[in-house]
Amino acid sequence: MFVELYDTTLRDGTQREGISLSVDDKLRITRLLDDLGVHYIEGGWPGSNPKDAEYFRRVRELPLRTAKVCAFSYTGRAGLAPEDDPNLQALLDAETEVVTIVGKTWTLHVHEVLRVSLEENLRMIGETVRYLVAHGRRVIYDAEHFFDGYRADPAYALATLQAAAENGAETVVLCDTNGGTMPWDIEAMTRAVVEAVPVRIGIHTHNDADVGVANALAAVRAGATHVQGTINGYGERVGNCNLISTIANLKLKMGIDCVTDDQLRRLTDVSRTVAEICNLAHDTHQPYVGQSAFAHKAGLHADATVKCRESYQHIEPELVGNRTRVLVSELAGKGNILYKAGELGLPETLDKEHARRIVRRIKELEAQGFSFESAEASVALLVRRSMPDYRPPFELVDFFTVVENREGRGLLAEASVKVRVGDEVVHTAAEGNGPVNALDAALRKALRPFYPQVDSFELSDYKVRILDGNNGTAATTRVLIDTRCGSRLWTTVGCSGNIIEASWQALADSVEYGLWVMEPVVQEA
Amino acid sequence: MFVELYDTTLRDGTQREGISLSVDDKLRITRLLDDLGVHYIEGGWPGSNPKDAEYFRRVRELPLRTAKVCAFSYTGRAGLAPEDDPNLQALLDAETEVVTIVGKTWTLHVHEVLRVSLEENLRMIGETVRYLVAHGRRVIYDAEHFFDGYRADPAYALATLQAAAENGAETVVLCDTNGGTMPWDIEAMTRAVVEAVPVRIGIHTHNDADVGVANALAAVRAGATHVQGTINGYGERVGNCNLISTIANLKLKMGIDCVTDDQLRRLTDVSRTVAEICNLAHDTHQPYVGQSAFAHKAGLHADATVKCRESYQHIEPELVGNRTRVLVSELAGKGNILYKAGELGLPETLDKEHARRIVRRIKELEAQGFSFESAEASVALLVRRSMPDYRPPFELVDFFTVVENREGRGLLAEASVKVRVGDEVVHTAAEGNGPVNALDAALRKALRPFYPQVDSFELSDYKVRILDGNNGTAATTRVLIDTRCGSRLWTTVGCSGNIIEASWQALADSVEYGLWVMEPVVQEA
Repeated sequence: MFVELYDTTLRDGTQREGISLSVDDKLRITRLLDDLGVHYIEGGWPGSNPKDAEYFRRVRELPLRTAKVCAFSYTGRAGLAPEDDPNLQALLDAETEVVTIVGKTWTLHVHEVLRVSLEENLRMIGETVRYLVAHGRRVIYDAEHFFDGYRADPAYALATLQAAAENGAETVVLCDTNGGTMPWDIEAMTRAVVEAVPVRIGIHTHNDADVGVANALAAVRAGATHVQGTINGYGERVGNCNLISTIANLKLKMGIDCVTDDQLRRLTDVSRTVAEICNLAHDTHQPYVGQSAFAHKAGLHADATVKCRESYQHIEPELVGNRTRVLVSELAGKGNILYKAGELGLPETLDKEHARRIVRRIKELEAQGFSFESAEASVALLVRRSMPDYRPPFELVDFFTVVENREGRGLLAEASVKVRVGDEVVHTAAEGNGPVNALDAALRKALRPFYPQVDSFELSDYKVRILDGNNGTAATTRVLIDTRCGSRLWTTVGCSGNIIEASWQALADSVEYGLWVMEPVVQEA
Repeated sequence: MFVELYDTTLRDGTQREGISLSVDDKLRITRLLDDLGVHYIEGGWPGSNPKDAEYFRRVRELPLRTAKVCAFSYTGRAGLAPEDDPNLQALLDAETEVVTIVGKTWTLHVHEVLRVSLEENLRMIGETVRYLVAHGRRVIYDAEHFFDGYRADPAYALATLQAAAENGAETVVLCDTNGGTMPWDIEAMTRAVVEAVPVRIGIHTHNDADVGVANALAAVRAGATHVQGTINGYGERVGNCNLISTIANLKLKMGIDCVTDDQLRRLTDVSRTVAEICNLAHDTHQPYVGQSAFAHKAGLHADATVKCRESYQHIEPELVGNRTRVLVSELAGKGNILYKAGELGLPETLDKEHARRIVRRIKELEAQGFSFESAEASVALLVRRSMPDYRPPFELVDFFTVVENREGRGLLAEASVKVRVGDEVVHTAAEGNGPVNALDAALRKALRPFYPQVDSFELSDYKVRILDGNNGTAATTRVLIDTRCGSRLWTTVGCSGNIIEASWQALADSVEYGLWVMEPVVQEA
């Protein structure tokens, strides 16, 4: 048995309060989802905003292996021909092989929200699907509020699915839009649809009743072979069906082949990296992939875990790329570091004792609050700095920042930086929008005479995470900086109780990494 | 149909990494659980530590209405008579009417962990239960690893339950200790037990496969009438079955009478207050009771929500003591603002022209990068400041912050603040971990003589978002601050190209809102 995975992190996921993704963020997530083996990636709603339109333009350049990117839209509007509907035109302009269309199932909604007749709604669904198929698209049809609609009027709910299927939709997806349906009802109603509608049946659930994943699995048991969800269950209200848990359950509990074993081992990494990109703390208690998911306190359980691993673990954590944690101090991963070093183009000749020292240093820094999961440039620098032939391109001596707001004189931010480059010490000052921007400007001013290429490094994102919320403004701060130079993007990390110092660390790493990996640009005379 | 609720927050819940409860904390939680209508409260393992023994002494003085407090222990040890077993003596010393005993079901564990014969294990279970019943206790028997044990050897697994039931256990509880079983397997195996064992059957699940709640409900469908769980699903690894979601589902989805309607309305408050006692941030995305559980972004959904509430909500949030939040944002209309004003306790007499002016102001600020979606306190202040009788509790004159890192002297952060309170101007200075923490300390120092209650406002989270990634460190910065005072939580927002200024705005709003809504604390003389 085979089940298709459809990810909507980039659309439904971004409905979560507090998530806002740049186009670069969305492209990075797209690549991660493709590596994970997801079959469809809903990229956005091209009619709704220019950022989504830009995503669809740029995503075409990505060399994806498994995933098809889909564009999303509502069915056409009442009384408007598809060719005159700007939403549908934007959908076609996205130039995706597959498109997803959502339409109304529930008579209540047709009457109260759309305010059209039941017949007109069926016509809109059929006409929209037919139009898109005629324009060469494969169509996935999402039946909004399917289960509420089916409870209210089963014949009409089925008729909407049939309107989509008869006009060429290759998959119809049953959506529990409000997230309030119980697994046994999902199973019974899905079974009825599987018997009545002769195309692929999909399931789209939400977690409002805390059974979002169970609902998706119940539908699969009833014959659904297409599952929609989001990474970490991000989504509106309490969130969507968590695709991470769903993939693990499909593979490991139901024996359904949806991704390969290698891809399954990426689950933990994908879950954590997507959280990082969304600037959300990863849930340490998340099933399968959380840091605590296989943590055992010392004592009976941990003992028994050593005695026989299946005693207190429902699966081998390595299957999903996670690991057992027995002690507070974490197990060394020198193999990982060697692998990483190779991946980063560093000498694979790194000996084992050397790798062990680096692992120790990484553990120390992670205990302080650093996170190297997505800051690979900082990891690369850590390795590079440990090499005997390493010479720093510059070293910090001092910095100083001031922000003041004086009555009648407004706001001012200024910084000075003293750095050593070779034998010279340079002392510069600059203003900025804020203290970090001023620090950045002063650092570039200091380095420009030696390394004119610093001007081609563009700081493309700057993320700040407060690690220990309970300490308020005294909490430890982690700063991640994304830097771009041409098509190359790298991420660096800093961490401190002081946001300025954390920013400085990430900034200095960002510039040093750029000086290392990018060819100097030719200066204009 | 009636289902008993058994809470183990005070024992299993405290196995969660990071939870540590004092005896007073445990007594407060006991009272909350009793108010909520829980039938059994597992108070702890009196044999394991003196703190639990103290809890059982003190809990007898609480005037509980519904709940029976239970003491917990393992079955007696192999080769030791119950009267010589210190664990069982401690259990009796707890002097609870009901006791809970856990024993082995899985042959693997009997052999590898207990290292006794299968017969000896049956004898230990039977003898322990008989001894406790003989001492006047009602006994609940927890069958550890029941589902794994049943899969391995169904006859033996049933024999362990029968040993407990025949010797007087009034309830036997099927435990999915590793949390890896799927709902349909839980249902089938529970059904087999219900047919074979003639006492009350209970269910105890964990969330390792993200189906902990669904598993408990599946067992209830198969005939279990006793459900164990913890508040907010706290527990070892990823946690136990979440009793909060389970109660809501039993009452509202299955029509099972486990608590009264009044008690159900306490659900949100109990969930948040227990989180607070455990010193954990409440999960804003928790089903039913999270702050975002019924949040709707403006636009289509919010419109539809106003049109017909069941459109995008699976239940009336008031049933569980939560509420609908229409998130105010760019798309907001004056209808939203009027609704919001009423919700915030502001005069509903706000005339339409006034509301329109506020909407205009919100849109201007959102265009600058503010986001009022979750910063309801800042919206409330915006409305309040537009009222003719508004007098600010304090006004900023100046601020100044400095961060420096000097060779050999390390890092320093300092701030000064000048504020006007009525006719007085106060000028204070303070140090901090970083510039924002220093600013916060200086502001509190300035306000304390006028408003001593500022010390009860705790900044519980501080979030920073960079809005326009493409401008790097010069980008616009949005700061959200969560402030807590007792069980009340509010969020404020600031936005500027300068992170210090953005933080100042959110900080000043946070304090002003607190001064407005919280009663002044009584100062000690």
